[in-house]
Amino acid sequence: MTRNLQFDTAALTEQDHAHIIHPWIDLGQAKTQDLLIVAESEGAYIYDSDGHRMLDGMGGMWCVQIGYGRNEMAEAIAEQVRRMAYYSPFGKISTPPAIEFATRIAKYAPGDLKHVFFTTGGSTAVDSALRFVQFYFGFTGRPSKQHIITREYAYHGSTYLTASVSGKPADRAYLKFETETVHHLPVPNPYRRPEGMTEAEFCDKCVADLENKILELGPDNVACFIAEPLLASGGVIVPPKGYQRRTLEVCRKYGVLYISDEVVTGFGRLGEIFASEPVFDLVPDIITTAKGLTSGYVPLGAFLVSDRLYDAVTVPEAKGKYFTNGFTYSAHPVSCAAGLKNLDIIERENLCQHVRDIGPYFMKKFRELSDLPLVGDVRGSHLMLCLEFVKDKKTKEPMPAEWNFGNRIINETMPRGLLARPMGHLVVLSPPLIITKAQIDEAADALRGAIKAVTDSLMRDGLWQEKAA
Amino acid sequence: MTRNLQFDTAALTEQDHAHIIHPWIDLGQAKTQDLLIVAESEGAYIYDSDGHRMLDGMGGMWCVQIGYGRNEMAEAIAEQVRRMAYYSPFGKISTPPAIEFATRIAKYAPGDLKHVFFTTGGSTAVDSALRFVQFYFGFTGRPSKQHIITREYAYHGSTYLTASVSGKPADRAYLKFETETVHHLPVPNPYRRPEGMTEAEFCDKCVADLENKILELGPDNVACFIAEPLLASGGVIVPPKGYQRRTLEVCRKYGVLYISDEVVTGFGRLGEIFASEPVFDLVPDIITTAKGLTSGYVPLGAFLVSDRLYDAVTVPEAKGKYFTNGFTYSAHPVSCAAGLKNLDIIERENLCQHVRDIGPYFMKKFRELSDLPLVGDVRGSHLMLCLEFVKDKKTKEPMPAEWNFGNRIINETMPRGLLARPMGHLVVLSPPLIITKAQIDEAADALRGAIKAVTDSLMRDGLWQEKAA
Repeated sequence: MTRNLQFDTAALTEQDHAHIIHPWIDLGQAKTQDLLIVAESEGAYIYDSDGHRMLDGMGGMWCVQIGYGRNEMAEAIAEQVRRMAYYSPFGKISTPPAIEFATRIAKYAPGDLKHVFFTTGGSTAVDSALRFVQFYFGFTGRPSKQHIITREYAYHGSTYLTASVSGKPADRAYLKFETETVHHLPVPNPYRRPEGMTEAEFCDKCVADLENKILELGPDNVACFIAEPLLASGGVIVPPKGYQRRTLEVCRKYGVLYISDEVVTGFGRLGEIFASEPVFDLVPDIITTAKGLTSGYVPLGAFLVSDRLYDAVTVPEAKGKYFTNGFTYSAHPVSCAAGLKNLDIIERENLCQHVRDIGPYFMKKFRELSDLPLVGDVRGSHLMLCLEFVKDKKTKEPMPAEWNFGNRIINETMPRGLLARPMGHLVVLSPPLIITKAQIDEAADALRGAIKAVTDSLMRDGLWQEKAA
Repeated sequence: MTRNLQFDTAALTEQDHAHIIHPWIDLGQAKTQDLLIVAESEGAYIYDSDGHRMLDGMGGMWCVQIGYGRNEMAEAIAEQVRRMAYYSPFGKISTPPAIEFATRIAKYAPGDLKHVFFTTGGSTAVDSALRFVQFYFGFTGRPSKQHIITREYAYHGSTYLTASVSGKPADRAYLKFETETVHHLPVPNPYRRPEGMTEAEFCDKCVADLENKILELGPDNVACFIAEPLLASGGVIVPPKGYQRRTLEVCRKYGVLYISDEVVTGFGRLGEIFASEPVFDLVPDIITTAKGLTSGYVPLGAFLVSDRLYDAVTVPEAKGKYFTNGFTYSAHPVSCAAGLKNLDIIERENLCQHVRDIGPYFMKKFRELSDLPLVGDVRGSHLMLCLEFVKDKKTKEPMPAEWNFGNRIINETMPRGLLARPMGHLVVLSPPLIITKAQIDEAADALRGAIKAVTDSLMRDGLWQEKAA
């Protein structure tokens, strides 16, 4: 399917090379490589600048929950732009869309997490949440509680601090990180658990890792544990059953705060507005959110904090004290207006229920690809999914990095009408929540075709051959 | 002037208290105090939720350059939302509005600062720029160059790292900061220079402060100097003449990079798109920008870097290397579409020329307030201005913090139809660039009336009396 578009791809590419720095681009090829210029979009589909249509398996970047081209979003956004495009939320200033949106999302928050601090996206949500924790312990007379526990393969953002609490090894070259107060636990990845260990035993081990780290640092020195319920950008890693609840119990035991990073998992991706409590039986102290919060239509992020913590820093003795953290674009009225309309759509179209209904089919269709030789693991939940490719399914031997396997796969899915996200030897899918069964079939077929084509080419090049059974 | 608006201010206030955490709110009063709920806007005016009109002396937050209610902004934004509301800029993916906007703003950038890295606002622009500097020195084999030199009273953002390089003393309570590699020079504030020192001598001293710090740390250990051309949130501090150029020369002498933080000064506030070169004779290595970049209509930030630096990290040997920094909302297509239309308006209406024309009148009208007893200093440039109030104009004795003088002033300007920004004993003005002479007169009259009213009340309360001449 194509559209007849009027873009000059060659000219745009030249301008891009001359003027744009892309995040996570291969710098050795940044000035020369062809680009994928996404120009138009509709529903679950995007069109590149040559008019080629692809199913958006990435959902933008885990975010376009309601799909593309929603006219009522355009109208709600334009109306707020006309009425009042911007005002600052600093001090005692507020705006109606921010108040209304905070009130609406607080209703969905678990426990007493009823106070919302708006930011500009996921990174600033996590950075601000971590600074709020610093402030909380400083203000309540426990300044030694500064240490943060996180996990390898976590992804929490790319400010200096949020990159420091992230743990993807590939993201750490040539940069500097906060290391003194940030501690990474081993990744709770069942696929790569020690040989001979059951998943239940592995869960015990992962929970013990946290408890041991707290004891090693001393509970009086540990501020918080931060964790995505599923590790998204780390490769959709699904911790062993019971892990989220049990790590919360360890935190409670030692007076360590729990930040549940729902930037990816929130707003329907796992079939709930916030997945922490309904999916993982987890009522944390803080939830961070972004992405699905506005379906990505306009930038917005937030953290929600318990009334208990907020009350502790808003006592009368706090007169003249300030939480000196916030952004010009915190609680942006246009972003909040977009968030309100996005939530209207999610509610009206029952998108969370749709995800709960269709999620099992989505997982099943892609798990069927496990019959292919290089597919080591297909994991995920609801509309978050990752395929891990391995050189040897039996030994789980990883592929050589120079195979650049994820990119090879995507280069084959694109002409077949599917865009997915390559990450090393992984391919990640997180489509718009409106995806249908027919579109899931379409995506699975495209991916199967691509895997076969890449496998054939590896064999042709003598890089790989199937072992005799 | 009032509008008949249909907001329930009491109900909104109650919801706000229950659900919103405001940046920089007095925490002891956060649950009880009245709010200013900004509900509508038009041109240079805003309307609160009771329909009371005020001239927006803050320009939102130094950002609403083109004024409020621009229908063509609403249309351009809505059109992009309909066409393609979001795509990620990660890796080799790009979008037409991002490419077009980067190309447009690069034309205005000084020297060879022709590569643009988009972010979500000022804080993420500075955070990303500092991480780019880390990456640059790491990749080019000089990882010891990690130290950052900044200044007291600087403001560069409120992520953990950008707050660390900021230097407002009031912003540092109960929080944690990076201190090992961040160094603050004394503020280059001519109003508070040592008694008996000329401004030229003071400039020599400030420049020597930088050179001495570089020598103390060792040039091989210093990555960069970061500086706003005028220190905006620190109180519109205008460094002594020649300071910007001379600090650049010191940096060049020792191989230290210069980041010019133009988040506030850019996009017309000083009568130029980028003020660094035309106003301050400064071609830095990196410029950071946000705010006026979209006139605040939609969140966006960016840093621009020299081709020289970019070329050094995109050599062929960089194959397989990545600058692992960026945000879901980097280069957001809707934000870039807003930026393009904003720049269209700035160009078409010659707003930079208007600022150059009207700036001197603006400064003159507010400088006339210096005849009032408590007005210690009126400083600024073009459409950035700060009044510093003092207890004693002769000795420059500061006011007691408990006078809460800035807030008292604003509480008096608001009923007089002017909103300005209180900061301790300072009042800051940065109106939309479209402001007219009549509106400047209106603002100056309101401020004069407010200062008189507050002065009278201080005298009535026995807190202050005019000394005999």
